[in-house]
Amino acid sequence: MTVSGKQLLLEAALRLTANNRNLKSLGIRELAREAGLNPNTFYRHFSDIDDLGLAAIDQLAARLRQPLRHLRREAACRAEEASHADGPELFGVSLGRGRKVCHQTVVLFFDFVADNPQAIMLGVRELQGPSAVLRKALHLMISGLATDMAEDIIELELLPKRVDPQAIEQVARLITRNLLQMSLDYINQPEQRDSIRALAEEQVVMLFTGAMVLHEAGQLKLPV
Amino acid sequence: MTVSGKQLLLEAALRLTANNRNLKSLGIRELAREAGLNPNTFYRHFSDIDDLGLAAIDQLAARLRQPLRHLRREAACRAEEASHADGPELFGVSLGRGRKVCHQTVVLFFDFVADNPQAIMLGVRELQGPSAVLRKALHLMISGLATDMAEDIIELELLPKRVDPQAIEQVARLITRNLLQMSLDYINQPEQRDSIRALAEEQVVMLFTGAMVLHEAGQLKLPV
Repeated sequence: MTVSGKQLLLEAALRLTANNRNLKSLGIRELAREAGLNPNTFYRHFSDIDDLGLAAIDQLAARLRQPLRHLRREAACRAEEASHADGPELFGVSLGRGRKVCHQTVVLFFDFVADNPQAIMLGVRELQGPSAVLRKALHLMISGLATDMAEDIIELELLPKRVDPQAIEQVARLITRNLLQMSLDYINQPEQRDSIRALAEEQVVMLFTGAMVLHEAGQLKLPV
Repeated sequence: MTVSGKQLLLEAALRLTANNRNLKSLGIRELAREAGLNPNTFYRHFSDIDDLGLAAIDQLAARLRQPLRHLRREAACRAEEASHADGPELFGVSLGRGRKVCHQTVVLFFDFVADNPQAIMLGVRELQGPSAVLRKALHLMISGLATDMAEDIIELELLPKRVDPQAIEQVARLITRNLLQMSLDYINQPEQRDSIRALAEEQVVMLFTGAMVLHEAGQLKLPV
């Protein structure tokens, strides 16, 4: 299969922005040259640089969302089949089962980060970048990932049914942001990868455990 | 009092990097011009750009650390004097007292962010920037803030005495990183400030509550 001009341009943009540049700073000639294409080709695929950025974000989201959902379901089933004697229960849910799902999801996420460092760096950088269009698209991507996580948690009963779904989604959004941020450390500090991943996993477990306990005590105060 | 040449150069660097640039990209002539000084003046105060970056980080740390410590002590005392009927206890510590200290500390932190946006942006950007010297200095600053937070929590007995001090410090470091990161949203989304601050506060409460509950269940697994 030959790589399409569109894909060549997307990959050229990832390479050019890998060194701390925002997409906005790229020229269309520069992009085409890096992709080995004629500058006119650009406009066959994209209307402008933001349009290319949106395609890059769509691709990132598509590559992340489905595999994460699929894995969470699989991991929950496998944990179900495994020994039920894996750790204590808290408010009727098994800590061990939640942790197993969390562990495998976090591993999958950071494997993706290691395989796609430039796409992740572009996403995290543009979250605070100059383009409002791209910032909005990234917030939507994060919300989408968070909605998936919340839905899976509720469906797989990883938290007590009493916990407010909206609260679960808010915590999931916070976690998604934090994981994206930690992925920069993961990329830039290869010698620390194991401990960054372990800390990320524990962060997820601490946040959901804390949210659950505070909710049960009537003390969870998330902004509406 | 006249502002020193050193301070003029530091402030010029903050202005020039405010628009998404790394310190490394600044020229010494450019800096001097922005500061309204002769280029030679630069070398009277700094050996190179990294040296200026270190001074900026030192100044940021100095302005943050002492006020945060002072306020935590004050807030804990005030919460002590107030009604003891403020919410439930968890493992022998008052949730309400911890939350009050957390609330006031988070407010102080974000007020500092609102007053010093350029210094904060420089710090967060250089955490992933090209200079290893500055990255290291920033990690030290974060560790310092985390050590302060952990010491205060232990001294003020905001968590049960049984919880491992090293675990408290690790959670404190995670929180410090997350707060710095959220401060970019706080700067860039002025219309969202109340909810960003409320979410930041709840994040701190959730993380420490989760850490405490997991610790008590023998299930806290932070990387060593």
